[in-house]
Amino acid sequence: MKNFCCRIIWVITLPLVMQSQIKVDQDRLEARIFKLAEFGLQDNGETERVAFSNADIAARAWVIEQMKAMDLETSIDFAGNITGIRKGREGSRKPIAFGSHIDRVPNGGNYDGCVGAMAALEVIQTLNENNIKTRHPLEVIIFSNEEGGVMGSRAIAGHLGENALNVVNSTGYSMGEGIARIGGDVSRIAEVAREPGSLTAFLELHIEQGGILDTERTDIGIVEGIVGLKWWEVEFTGFANHAGTTPMDMRQDALLAAAKFIIAVNEITISYDGKQVGTVGRIEARPGAPNVIPGKVVTSLEIRDLSSEVISRLFRDIDQKAREIAAVSGVNIKFHPLDTTADPALTDPSIQNQIEGIATTLGLSFKKMQSGAGHDAQDMALIAPTGMIFVPSKDGISHSPKEFTSAEDMADGTNVLMHTILALDKKPDKP
Amino acid sequence: MKNFCCRIIWVITLPLVMQSQIKVDQDRLEARIFKLAEFGLQDNGETERVAFSNADIAARAWVIEQMKAMDLETSIDFAGNITGIRKGREGSRKPIAFGSHIDRVPNGGNYDGCVGAMAALEVIQTLNENNIKTRHPLEVIIFSNEEGGVMGSRAIAGHLGENALNVVNSTGYSMGEGIARIGGDVSRIAEVAREPGSLTAFLELHIEQGGILDTERTDIGIVEGIVGLKWWEVEFTGFANHAGTTPMDMRQDALLAAAKFIIAVNEITISYDGKQVGTVGRIEARPGAPNVIPGKVVTSLEIRDLSSEVISRLFRDIDQKAREIAAVSGVNIKFHPLDTTADPALTDPSIQNQIEGIATTLGLSFKKMQSGAGHDAQDMALIAPTGMIFVPSKDGISHSPKEFTSAEDMADGTNVLMHTILALDKKPDKP
Repeated sequence: MKNFCCRIIWVITLPLVMQSQIKVDQDRLEARIFKLAEFGLQDNGETERVAFSNADIAARAWVIEQMKAMDLETSIDFAGNITGIRKGREGSRKPIAFGSHIDRVPNGGNYDGCVGAMAALEVIQTLNENNIKTRHPLEVIIFSNEEGGVMGSRAIAGHLGENALNVVNSTGYSMGEGIARIGGDVSRIAEVAREPGSLTAFLELHIEQGGILDTERTDIGIVEGIVGLKWWEVEFTGFANHAGTTPMDMRQDALLAAAKFIIAVNEITISYDGKQVGTVGRIEARPGAPNVIPGKVVTSLEIRDLSSEVISRLFRDIDQKAREIAAVSGVNIKFHPLDTTADPALTDPSIQNQIEGIATTLGLSFKKMQSGAGHDAQDMALIAPTGMIFVPSKDGISHSPKEFTSAEDMADGTNVLMHTILALDKKPDKP
Repeated sequence: MKNFCCRIIWVITLPLVMQSQIKVDQDRLEARIFKLAEFGLQDNGETERVAFSNADIAARAWVIEQMKAMDLETSIDFAGNITGIRKGREGSRKPIAFGSHIDRVPNGGNYDGCVGAMAALEVIQTLNENNIKTRHPLEVIIFSNEEGGVMGSRAIAGHLGENALNVVNSTGYSMGEGIARIGGDVSRIAEVAREPGSLTAFLELHIEQGGILDTERTDIGIVEGIVGLKWWEVEFTGFANHAGTTPMDMRQDALLAAAKFIIAVNEITISYDGKQVGTVGRIEARPGAPNVIPGKVVTSLEIRDLSSEVISRLFRDIDQKAREIAAVSGVNIKFHPLDTTADPALTDPSIQNQIEGIATTLGLSFKKMQSGAGHDAQDMALIAPTGMIFVPSKDGISHSPKEFTSAEDMADGTNVLMHTILALDKKPDKP
């Protein structure tokens, strides 16, 4: 009787008095990160867990087990996304969804994706422990194969193309084969697509994967948008010749032209205000001997920005400069656009404000910023008002076994995630 | 009796009246070039004949056969060089030697080395046919494995190092193994070395392998010297990072630093008067993905000139500029000198003058020039007064199946070679 009485009081008073003081369990959160890292652990102490691998399959089974233990109603959709539903008090409401991914790049780290995925579980467990029932259903989504082309979130947004299914990752399985391995069904993948407006909101917590928060000692990044990107292959055709017998003024040196191009990409990118980035990351010079003037060079070119117009303007400038370089060097320069375009995705301004308010309440420093990396949130933004929360990456290192985010930083981000969910839950739904 | 009488008159009068008008047989010379190209002929119509290959061994056997048919006294020295001696009228004199090589680079052409080697045979046959007996012995040398490190001529000059014998070429044989395959004997290689002064002169005819004679429509190049060269491996160490999440001002982009370096090598090389060349022919950027800022780049650096001082001065300037680039880019730049140094080799001025006189007499245009490529003559210059004659390479192309020199150009060069030999033969020997 006593217990029952106490419980009644607690349920009634907590939302009013103490709900804003609820915190997630930092140690439990970090313990799950470490546990997850055991799936795919190698002899060298590093973990490999590329999508569709046996380690990925085992980790997914463990996640489902965890979800079930939290009373979530779990399922795997036809694209292999794992979902877990926690019912809301008002059954007719559209879910507030949140989550991330647990697959990894080859030779990656323990935090990319995993922090957001484990944070989602921690939010559910904390709400359960505190007996907080939201008005809206909550939906945890663990997206399938993020690193191999944001596969699961693309399917949910309804634009996972047929061609993508043929892409093979480092496991040797194509996306099509992989989807079958993780419990999906390629033949019914179109059914995974959700209507725009079918979710109240989508939220993703993620490590920054850059060094801004760490350098500036800021707790929380409030993501204003996820940059779009375009890739080109750039081909420089000069004339290969004997480096000893060809005078300097008779050369058509493709590598010299490529060097001028690389510098031009850098100079043009930094010539404008803004956060745009331009990168030449790959280069190949043929024949590639110390005593032969390179006749052919192929480089990559990548431009990213939150604005498609900025990307176009930078490329126009770079293209113009390439023509000038070609004219003076006798080297032909040709751009081949690659089919890896991603449009910029903006997060919802009112959710940004909500996150900012929560961070302020929790006494955390924050910074509005863009995401230079692609995320599942990029596709989810096509169908739902979306918010994204960053936590610091030590030294800005990511996609590396050296990737690290402290338990405190992870817990801060998870608290912001949880309280943003609770705040959104209280708001009247948009029509 | 009539024949005998005629022959007497001919032998007596020819040296006085007609010797300067003797010409080599252009068609026969070209036929031998074509015949030689059959050794190693592939299904695609191109020839592969790297040193130590079966094709090389077969071609060498054919050359020896040709020499024997010309009454040369042939032998193979312990380094695998083929020599053929034609006795002189005055037995005590030191030989006038001439020749080149018949081994080829992979995917090479029919003229590099082969022209000088077949010219040497053509000179002997022409002298035989015209019954011209020289005072000095004549020695044809077909050097072994020129393309794999001027092996045979280095052995003759007495500086083929022990380490060199371990170098493996594209046949899979090391020089040590290869020497055994072609009839040499590694254990006695030191005996191949000849004393400086043991030859009256050494002459080599070769295709230019550059475009100067062809562009300027000049018949004969009189080589003033063979450039020296130095190689370095240059290592740029920045920091690999995510191209999307790392702002432009937080990058340590090893490829951007390498691009500045490549331009600096070019600018510094052309900033001085002279024929020096500086080349970056090889580049590798790691990890080499379009979306990752390169953390490590390795390039080659090659500098060639006729003066060791010029090479040193250029390198000092390049090294200084590299320090400046490193300082502003946060990228460490390190030079690793490679063991491929060749000192510049000057040809003998009086032989240069002799060649000039012969070219003038034959009505051929000529140009004094340097050799940007290394040759057997480079090592022979260490032990004998050396001369080198170039003939045009069409479009300056060499080390390619597209390599071409016309029969007329080959014959012109061979005539200059022959008459230079005859002129040197008449001169009093240097003490």
